[in-house]
Amino acid sequence: MNSINALIKRQAPEHSLEQVFYLDEAIYRHDLENIFMSDWLYVCHDSQVARAGDCYTWEVADESVIVARDEELKLHAFANVCRHRGSRICEAGQSSHKRLVCPYHAWTYGLNGQLLNARQMDESFDKSASGLKKLYLEEFCGLIFISFSENPPSFALLREELSEPLKVFDIKNTKVAHHEVHPTHANWKLVLENFNECYHCGPAHKEFSASHSLMLEKDRQRVFDELIAKRAPAAGISAEPVGIMQIDEKTKANAPYYYDRYALFKGYLTGSEDGQPVAPLLGEVSGYDGGASNVQLGNLTYLLIYADHVVLYRFTPRSVNLTDAELIWFVRSDADLENDVDIERMIWLWNVTTIADKDIIERNQKGVQSRYYRPGPYAPMETYTINFIKWYLNTFSK
Amino acid sequence: MNSINALIKRQAPEHSLEQVFYLDEAIYRHDLENIFMSDWLYVCHDSQVARAGDCYTWEVADESVIVARDEELKLHAFANVCRHRGSRICEAGQSSHKRLVCPYHAWTYGLNGQLLNARQMDESFDKSASGLKKLYLEEFCGLIFISFSENPPSFALLREELSEPLKVFDIKNTKVAHHEVHPTHANWKLVLENFNECYHCGPAHKEFSASHSLMLEKDRQRVFDELIAKRAPAAGISAEPVGIMQIDEKTKANAPYYYDRYALFKGYLTGSEDGQPVAPLLGEVSGYDGGASNVQLGNLTYLLIYADHVVLYRFTPRSVNLTDAELIWFVRSDADLENDVDIERMIWLWNVTTIADKDIIERNQKGVQSRYYRPGPYAPMETYTINFIKWYLNTFSK
Amino acid sequence: MNSINALIKRQAPEHSLEQVFYLDEAIYRHDLENIFMSDWLYVCHDSQVARAGDCYTWEVADESVIVARDEELKLHAFANVCRHRGSRICEAGQSSHKRLVCPYHAWTYGLNGQLLNARQMDESFDKSASGLKKLYLEEFCGLIFISFSENPPSFALLREELSEPLKVFDIKNTKVAHHEVHPTHANWKLVLENFNECYHCGPAHKEFSASHSLMLEKDRQRVFDELIAKRAPAAGISAEPVGIMQIDEKTKANAPYYYDRYALFKGYLTGSEDGQPVAPLLGEVSGYDGGASNVQLGNLTYLLIYADHVVLYRFTPRSVNLTDAELIWFVRSDADLENDVDIERMIWLWNVTTIADKDIIERNQKGVQSRYYRPGPYAPMETYTINFIKWYLNTFSK
Repeated sequence: MNSINALIKRQAPEHSLEQVFYLDEAIYRHDLENIFMSDWLYVCHDSQVARAGDCYTWEVADESVIVARDEELKLHAFANVCRHRGSRICEAGQSSHKRLVCPYHAWTYGLNGQLLNARQMDESFDKSASGLKKLYLEEFCGLIFISFSENPPSFALLREELSEPLKVFDIKNTKVAHHEVHPTHANWKLVLENFNECYHCGPAHKEFSASHSLMLEKDRQRVFDELIAKRAPAAGISAEPVGIMQIDEKTKANAPYYYDRYALFKGYLTGSEDGQPVAPLLGEVSGYDGGASNVQLGNLTYLLIYADHVVLYRFTPRSVNLTDAELIWFVRSDADLENDVDIERMIWLWNVTTIADKDIIERNQKGVQSRYYRPGPYAPMETYTINFIKWYLNTFSK
Repeated sequence: MNSINALIKRQAPEHSLEQVFYLDEAIYRHDLENIFMSDWLYVCHDSQVARAGDCYTWEVADESVIVARDEELKLHAFANVCRHRGSRICEAGQSSHKRLVCPYHAWTYGLNGQLLNARQMDESFDKSASGLKKLYLEEFCGLIFISFSENPPSFALLREELSEPLKVFDIKNTKVAHHEVHPTHANWKLVLENFNECYHCGPAHKEFSASHSLMLEKDRQRVFDELIAKRAPAAGISAEPVGIMQIDEKTKANAPYYYDRYALFKGYLTGSEDGQPVAPLLGEVSGYDGGASNVQLGNLTYLLIYADHVVLYRFTPRSVNLTDAELIWFVRSDADLENDVDIERMIWLWNVTTIADKDIIERNQKGVQSRYYRPGPYAPMETYTINFIKWYLNTFSK
Repeated sequence: MNSINALIKRQAPEHSLEQVFYLDEAIYRHDLENIFMSDWLYVCHDSQVARAGDCYTWEVADESVIVARDEELKLHAFANVCRHRGSRICEAGQSSHKRLVCPYHAWTYGLNGQLLNARQMDESFDKSASGLKKLYLEEFCGLIFISFSENPPSFALLREELSEPLKVFDIKNTKVAHHEVHPTHANWKLVLENFNECYHCGPAHKEFSASHSLMLEKDRQRVFDELIAKRAPAAGISAEPVGIMQIDEKTKANAPYYYDRYALFKGYLTGSEDGQPVAPLLGEVSGYDGGASNVQLGNLTYLLIYADHVVLYRFTPRSVNLTDAELIWFVRSDADLENDVDIERMIWLWNVTTIADKDIIERNQKGVQSRYYRPGPYAPMETYTINFIKWYLNTFSK
């Protein structure tokens, strides 16, 4: 890690990373260990594990986690590894069980992870020492997070400060309306760098740029900020920025968090091609304010909240140069997906945008592999990406 | 290898292996070198190289072996590597040749491996020093084994002790009726661990468990052992266990061997779904005893012998986490495959069983990759797997 | 590299390489660095970048090069890496642009590589220091070569000595008629060893051997050399060998070069199945001389010139054991591809030959992976392959 510290010192401020950070297997293992295995990771929504016995299994790196709701409706998270010979117990996705039974030799666990039965083991075998490995779990606004860390960052401050602005959307009482995965052949940091800046929106995303003021330079955004500061409260929605992304003394031991709201252009009520609604208003929202909220929950989970639907973004590294970009759309739980929601129109914008991003991120990956790649200067519009890079380099000095 | 010795010392007795043994590339190379390149490997059956000029070529790891029958009907085994520039000479599988001619530059070898012709080489070139590299070969009951070792274990004891119980089946006078390969994405040891225990048969193999008493606990098997001890001899078949699997002072310099016979449940004459015959009785077997013989030939070849057919199991590592599980079915050589053998019914049981095993072994592999995997205790019914692990760990102290 | 020097010393003269040279990743990186990144590489033909704004982009290893023709029709070569965040700018193949605009954030470069516009950057940003990285380029007979080296070998001697014999073919005024890539699963050196000798032509290429005297032993070639020495000049074509392949004191600082002409067998006017013409005569060639010219341009580009078409061979390593063998056919530029050229008959010979080579080279690769592979003696007919190996081993002593 000495050579890494040398690289970090060499790293020009507000420039993209040195090549090695994008390509090196050892650095990728650092990233998995110190970020993905240390931070909070979104697994699923409350509605996907609604009843006793419901389980949701999700995979990242070499790990698989089971989120299970027990008979008292309490949520648990376990490593999906049988204590006998290590077999995975549940398959990925939703399932429902009275007991968690390993398919290999039928060792049987309760929904709280306790080992209930191990067939034909000697009497000397101590079942109580062989429960499933428990993992930390947090539920916030119906969004279920787990951490593989023994000492994850605190969720308290995030919960305290974001509860108020998110309340009106009642995300707990939503449900998944659609889900897409776009495997992107690039290092996960290039995917996050892309996600964190809108300098590329003008050249690369004409669909997004037609409706979202986020694509404007800061100076030109100001007039739209003034507009949304009036329109949002009129619909019961906060337009006040809260929190700070990624780097802050206060948040060192806390999961970072962020909330703001920005305006859509004239005529756009939500993130559809024609700007017209695609679903019933969320929660207690009282009208279409023509805005969208950027939300960050911890370092790795992002929401975009329109008046009538939520998009959740999850970026999961699969190898040093492959990352799944995942989109999950939520609508209010009592919406009728057949009659109240126009799924095609709802998913259009972020599918075309993510497909375009996949292409430019993969070109970026190919370019950073070249011997002629040199870290280049970020533009003023790339502030959040600059912050992301600062935060990332900081993970080496923990 | 110091750290490996430390791991071996740390290894709890009668527990599954430490994670590194399943995942590490260096350990995988140890396994290839000290097991697959040192032991005896089954290549093909006598009937597949019946006439002068018949060859059978088989591949494992980076090696390819040619088994060839010469003009005096003697069998030879050669490395499939031309002495000119190293090209492979024969393609995998059966072929027939007067001479072994390299397809690249037409260097030509006799069926005994001698270099007969090297086009246009200078007169100074010494053909006699450029024959094909010979490998050790053993034929037993028509089963042809080779070893890549310069000093393979002796076959003498195996031959001496197994000739008698196997005689009645006359495996030499059988032929291949069918052949299946199931690529299994797991380390080869997880495949062998699975093959060596029937603790999982109850939960995972309802088809096998419906007919084979092997799936019972030892205490409950005893009554069936008594039944087969009478029924087998009545059909001319031995029910006496012979040999020991894997670990024995006596067999250190010898290829290990094993034979026993166990009962099928009432109404089952052979390993078919309805228990009814699928082929004519083997060799001198005089009737359906409703039994099956487990046979081990060396460390890596297994047979299951019913009254009317033989199943051979071969497990070939393809990479640290990919193993081919191969099934070869034999029937008596004079059986008419169209009219005397019901191939669909014959292969049904071991195909469904191997497909189910592929699934649970692959789940096992995924689980042992987790940071939460810990070696777990084998159950009493997993004795042969315990022996396999002991034998395996022993290969590090050669 | 000490151990490599030991290997090089151990290397028996006029024998194929030690195994490690074909398999080792570190040696493969040496090869990329000291050969493919140091030498001249053919990119495209003049006719593919004929007009101002035409670009041709080609990829090798982790690099991508743009050849661009500017407004004054001058050719440039650039690394295809944006100076902002490293994205690839152009896609592989032909394209045409007024400006080179990065698709990510729209940084815009002139056709001479100068950065013209970087949207919204601070005033302190120095555009003049952020032009595209220029690479060395040479054009010879309309064939465009680039080098990733800062100090590539001189092209002067090659240009001086080959201009005269190549003049009659007027390759500058040809165009690409067809193009094929045959991915070959083998180390690039096995592909080049194969290409450089015709000892295998008899056993492996009956189509080529039916018409090309190159497949004969030297002694038997002599009579055909005498024939072509008369027939070629009668058609205005030189039959005089020029230059030396690969190893020469004089060419150490120069790109090596070679030209000769050999006879086709009686009745063959060109390299078609029936020997009949497939395209109009090249350049100033005045008749079908029934010959073919072997040409080498630098260490890695080869031509075969018939009276009516040219075949260019490019071998591009994709990984340590994967190499693209590429064939490009040229005909005179004013030929009508529909009516004057019989493309099927023109490409037949070198497609069947290259497909056969792919098969034998892949068998060669599999064989050299074996522990039983030993470097074997090259035959007298493999002289150019012996030279290739000498040249290759020399690249370690630079």
